[in-house]
Amino acid sequence: MRITALAGGVGGARFLRGVLAAAPEADVAVVGNVGDDITLHGLRVCPDLDTVMYTLGGGIHEGQGWGRAGETFSVAAELAEYGVGPDWFTLGDRDIATHLVRTQMLDAGYPLSAVTEALCARWKPGVRLIPATDDRAETHVVLVDEEGNRRAVHFQEYWVRMHAPKAEAITFVGAEKAQPAPGVMDAIAGADVVLFPPSNPVVSIGAILAVPGIREALAATSAPVVGLSPIIGSAPVRGMADKVLAAVGVETSAAAVAEYYGADLLDGWLIDEKDAAQRDRVEAAGIRCRAVPLLMRDLDATATMARAALELATELGRPDD
Amino acid sequence: MRITALAGGVGGARFLRGVLAAAPEADVAVVGNVGDDITLHGLRVCPDLDTVMYTLGGGIHEGQGWGRAGETFSVAAELAEYGVGPDWFTLGDRDIATHLVRTQMLDAGYPLSAVTEALCARWKPGVRLIPATDDRAETHVVLVDEEGNRRAVHFQEYWVRMHAPKAEAITFVGAEKAQPAPGVMDAIAGADVVLFPPSNPVVSIGAILAVPGIREALAATSAPVVGLSPIIGSAPVRGMADKVLAAVGVETSAAAVAEYYGADLLDGWLIDEKDAAQRDRVEAAGIRCRAVPLLMRDLDATATMARAALELATELGRPDD
Repeated sequence: MRITALAGGVGGARFLRGVLAAAPEADVAVVGNVGDDITLHGLRVCPDLDTVMYTLGGGIHEGQGWGRAGETFSVAAELAEYGVGPDWFTLGDRDIATHLVRTQMLDAGYPLSAVTEALCARWKPGVRLIPATDDRAETHVVLVDEEGNRRAVHFQEYWVRMHAPKAEAITFVGAEKAQPAPGVMDAIAGADVVLFPPSNPVVSIGAILAVPGIREALAATSAPVVGLSPIIGSAPVRGMADKVLAAVGVETSAAAVAEYYGADLLDGWLIDEKDAAQRDRVEAAGIRCRAVPLLMRDLDATATMARAALELATELGRPDD
Repeated sequence: MRITALAGGVGGARFLRGVLAAAPEADVAVVGNVGDDITLHGLRVCPDLDTVMYTLGGGIHEGQGWGRAGETFSVAAELAEYGVGPDWFTLGDRDIATHLVRTQMLDAGYPLSAVTEALCARWKPGVRLIPATDDRAETHVVLVDEEGNRRAVHFQEYWVRMHAPKAEAITFVGAEKAQPAPGVMDAIAGADVVLFPPSNPVVSIGAILAVPGIREALAATSAPVVGLSPIIGSAPVRGMADKVLAAVGVETSAAAVAEYYGADLLDGWLIDEKDAAQRDRVEAAGIRCRAVPLLMRDLDATATMARAALELATELGRPDD
């Protein structure tokens, strides 16, 4: 079975563990979000790709869900002594090695997809991790201050430095000229199942969909496309999905997110049992819906979620069902 | 008193401590060797400049004479896990922060001299540290293998990786087109005393002299130029001076090094007491010579050496002496 998943950071990476546990024989491709990527201290940092790579490769800091286990911070402490900012984004030493390898390869002319493949040669994540695009397509958040002045900040600044205040709009700078990285279109067209993990629908999955061609490929693929709601009740399980959903005019609910993706993209949608009442609304939008436990408490619970998604896909794949 | 010193790495840096102890009120400029500079993992590394900066700024690993005190090696361990070389040159984490700041500033278009000044704003070495040149002028060592094939390797590869085998020749790649960095010529022309620390005469001082204009400025300056022999007996106090002296056809002795610099450059030369018998030979070359203890055992001994050099300079500065 060929499974292709679109993934953001922590939530996506954890869900992928469940997919690998639920379908150990599957050939899994992951289209990773690069909208959060940022250059810090001259180093190209790809937080979501690295979170997937470290999580599936056994290098992740399990407690926080991102960054390296056993991390040290000598470099960051020295950069602070030099008074070199930004002081709101701390790179760990182990993590810096990844960024050094990446930056050097990018500077040598390799596309990000080739760099990611090279990094994964060490981590062996058990999936084929492909950046959504090799081009620069950065997620920026438009804010309005008290005087009504608008300004856009990089997503990392919005999230890490500013702790996700009210947002006015989300833009994907450069996305309109970006092309899907080699392998992305084939992974979508050739999949037996496409999964949308419970990642942020706007700044994770949405940033992937902002790359021209990917949305169309998802609409055109013969594979059933099944997503899992990142919203349980009226709040995101983690992160700032409520803030960025508001910025795109979408209420924070499992059904509203399904409608936001729309039946063009989604064939099936899993919502949490607590939100079972929203099932009819989702199905009214032309999306098959099931209510199952959606909290990724541990690997077993996550694998159960992945199985439910794959079962829904199988059901959707049957001609007359 | 305005003192200008040409300096390599460990020996030069330690001697400069002695200069600052011997002449605490002096205005000291240091023209630093950049021939050893190398780009590793995309980071621009300037070993000699950093050794001077860390030594005088209180950040040096006292035991080894280079690198940072309390250094850690998380990044290097990770780079090794990625299988990214070279494996013969290990960058410490604290040191990497310096290289990150430097590389980012260089990439932004600042010349190395401005970068060095910015780094020194933190370290406050008590001297004005100026790279010999802002241009790339790399010391390469020509080797001949058993089949008679010649090849040139970067000085760091020769020294750190190969442990200084027999060398055929030394070349300063790019030096012919290099220009002295801003401040270098003024520091030499405007000095009251110019000192050559007991640094390597070929790959440290020699690499500085390879930058067109610097040798001429030293020959032209009205300041007395006094050097200290890096050779005691028939061996260098540290490093591979014997190997690189042989490559330029110079015997490993205090007198031969004085002759190598020549009376055009040197007005005075300090040799070790053990080499007192070579004094007449040095003076026959037109260079005033004194035999004093030249082992930098500790700061006191080093300050005494610096005082002896300054006294010889004073003596040389008197019109009819």
